[in-house]
Amino acid sequence: VEPRRTESFSDGVFAVAITVLVFNLLPIAKAGITPDDLATAWPQYAGYVISFLTIGIMWLNHHTLLSQAVRVDRTCLVLNLFLLMGVVTVPFTTALVADTIKASNSSSARLAAVVYGLLMVVISIGFQAIWLYLSSHREALSAPEERPDGSPRPPQPTGSPLLVALRFGAGLGGYIVAVVVAALGSALAALVIYGVVAVYYLFEHLPGPTD
Amino acid sequence: VEPRRTESFSDGVFAVAITVLVFNLLPIAKAGITPDDLATAWPQYAGYVISFLTIGIMWLNHHTLLSQAVRVDRTCLVLNLFLLMGVVTVPFTTALVADTIKASNSSSARLAAVVYGLLMVVISIGFQAIWLYLSSHREALSAPEERPDGSPRPPQPTGSPLLVALRFGAGLGGYIVAVVVAALGSALAALVIYGVVAVYYLFEHLPGPTD
Amino acid sequence: VEPRRTESFSDGVFAVAITVLVFNLLPIAKAGITPDDLATAWPQYAGYVISFLTIGIMWLNHHTLLSQAVRVDRTCLVLNLFLLMGVVTVPFTTALVADTIKASNSSSARLAAVVYGLLMVVISIGFQAIWLYLSSHREALSAPEERPDGSPRPPQPTGSPLLVALRFGAGLGGYIVAVVVAALGSALAALVIYGVVAVYYLFEHLPGPTD
Amino acid sequence: VEPRRTESFSDGVFAVAITVLVFNLLPIAKAGITPDDLATAWPQYAGYVISFLTIGIMWLNHHTLLSQAVRVDRTCLVLNLFLLMGVVTVPFTTALVADTIKASNSSSARLAAVVYGLLMVVISIGFQAIWLYLSSHREALSAPEERPDGSPRPPQPTGSPLLVALRFGAGLGGYIVAVVVAALGSALAALVIYGVVAVYYLFEHLPGPTD
Repeated sequence: VEPRRTESFSDGVFAVAITVLVFNLLPIAKAGITPDDLATAWPQYAGYVISFLTIGIMWLNHHTLLSQAVRVDRTCLVLNLFLLMGVVTVPFTTALVADTIKASNSSSARLAAVVYGLLMVVISIGFQAIWLYLSSHREALSAPEERPDGSPRPPQPTGSPLLVALRFGAGLGGYIVAVVVAALGSALAALVIYGVVAVYYLFEHLPGPTD
Repeated sequence: VEPRRTESFSDGVFAVAITVLVFNLLPIAKAGITPDDLATAWPQYAGYVISFLTIGIMWLNHHTLLSQAVRVDRTCLVLNLFLLMGVVTVPFTTALVADTIKASNSSSARLAAVVYGLLMVVISIGFQAIWLYLSSHREALSAPEERPDGSPRPPQPTGSPLLVALRFGAGLGGYIVAVVVAALGSALAALVIYGVVAVYYLFEHLPGPTD
Repeated sequence: VEPRRTESFSDGVFAVAITVLVFNLLPIAKAGITPDDLATAWPQYAGYVISFLTIGIMWLNHHTLLSQAVRVDRTCLVLNLFLLMGVVTVPFTTALVADTIKASNSSSARLAAVVYGLLMVVISIGFQAIWLYLSSHREALSAPEERPDGSPRPPQPTGSPLLVALRFGAGLGGYIVAVVVAALGSALAALVIYGVVAVYYLFEHLPGPTD
Repeated sequence: VEPRRTESFSDGVFAVAITVLVFNLLPIAKAGITPDDLATAWPQYAGYVISFLTIGIMWLNHHTLLSQAVRVDRTCLVLNLFLLMGVVTVPFTTALVADTIKASNSSSARLAAVVYGLLMVVISIGFQAIWLYLSSHREALSAPEERPDGSPRPPQPTGSPLLVALRFGAGLGGYIVAVVVAALGSALAALVIYGVVAVYYLFEHLPGPTD
């Protein structure tokens, strides 16, 4: 299977999932519009910004991942499907956190932050799985010298795949720390860590032949 | 008509339909967030996972189907439109099942599971119709040696189209069994069958020249 | 401007608009699920099917329209934007009709059917405008011998553009008749006409070089 | 990174965001459907039309912007992500304005119009940032003579980038004026200015090599 339609479908899912985040904002407009009302809704705004950046950066890395392959086999498509299932769930966990974060030490807020973080952990593992699968099947998945649309075959990225996975896994580590913080301490502190990891991934990322 | 824009439109519809499933989860965040609340919502999660996998695998098979053709004629586009109408209805039948499955032997739950299964039967028939149409018009629809984007014409897949249709029809059989089970017995048992068929289609599928 | 990204954006808007129709079904799942409840919701189902087919066929014709052009200028993009605005409004007018059609002779039902029909008239005029604009600027918009992606320039379709516009306008006439019927008589009769026009467009359509 | 998938993702986000606007209309259908009810909802219609045109024109300019580049680097993708975050927020600010504009001099209405305008200012700055970034990195981002899909490298647009930025910034100026008007005077007057700026951008726009 050529990657073009996989990218097209994945792009569509990412685009819809990232836009669905605005549905967490729309009820604010119904709840009354005074300066106080708008200020009270800060958890919704914070969740919107953090999750938007997070999904957006996932898209960037997904882009880089798939650009490694000239062909996508069935296994890879199924892994991709599970990854997308995680991405589409982000607006739900964002709503959980935004609805509870104000009482930052309540058990509800901490539970929501744990669920948010566990989803991020699952998504990170999904990325790692696709990366390791593509790395270990590079020969099989890049047989022709050209991609079907005629663009030249991407060169091998530098660096050991395992090393790359380890560096990329730093974000995974950050999410695990945040989950523990949320479980034992403060949901707000966990939310800050999620924001920090999002900013981290703005700069650190999978190596791509086209960068 | 070249298949590119048909694929693009279909990919968009699949991507939105699969993401709309998360709207069945969003109300959970409003209903209170204690461990009990989140656990109580298990039918929503189960429906989300099963329907996500189901739509995702439909996309895979749709992909394989259309890659057989170098041209798509009006009849094929209209068949495709009816197929997409079925796919877009899945989030609705998923909500029906998830809202009723807890009282697994109630008439509401069984009715919902029957509706869910009937939609799956209709979608399976839609796939069969497109497959048989493309198979029987292969000559007419693959006249040029190259696809319009310059990629080479896909080779003929092996195996008799009818045999393929029969094997592919195993899932259709599974859905019919589940509808009967739901009508006469337990909605939960039917839901399990829907999950099993989804997993079955992860491995069994239409033959494609690009696999 | 090359048509590729215009098609991609338009495909996305059509795909989302057609999928938004399912949001008119989702509340049904909340309202109780007995055979009676599901049967009571027949206007929602009828509206869903008619509007789905209508938007789907609009997409088909939009596809045929744009495939005439190798370039899309600013005027055409703005006309296209107004057309898409009409298409995106269809789920709203569908909801209006579905919520009122049961009391088919009430003033609410007739008003809703009139609004639905007027939107269809506006969209039909939009199609005519783009068709006539493209027809009268064929030279300017097809200067290069090849489309940018290397596929050959589409041949001129046969038939006078004005004649084609007249034949294509039959649907427009149907919509106007339905609006009058809705205003003076029965909303249900108008709904039947909308369905008939949708089926009519399944067979009759703009001529395309690629058909 | 080649621009194709960036365009595909951005097109998806624009398409969904523009379609989400219809969710501000859907509740009207629930609120009763008499001529009075429909007429009472005029702020929703006005907001829908203005925001639809505004997002649509943003898409046009986004299209023109990205067509300048043969490659998109990480910085540009991140700028694009922030721009899209602003675009996706438009349905929210539209709902804010539509829910309050009737009492045009109330503090709620003026606050909503200020928030709407500030978002437009932020989006305009985002466009300027991408434009200036692409202009100042033209050499680095257009090294190959051809785009990856084989179409020829777009020629340099005429005119100084800074001059273009200034002319394009006229809309930014209009938004700032509208924010001041909304803050000190009438929300309705601000809404009129937003409409005027949208119409202005129908005619005035970034220069593109393909126009």
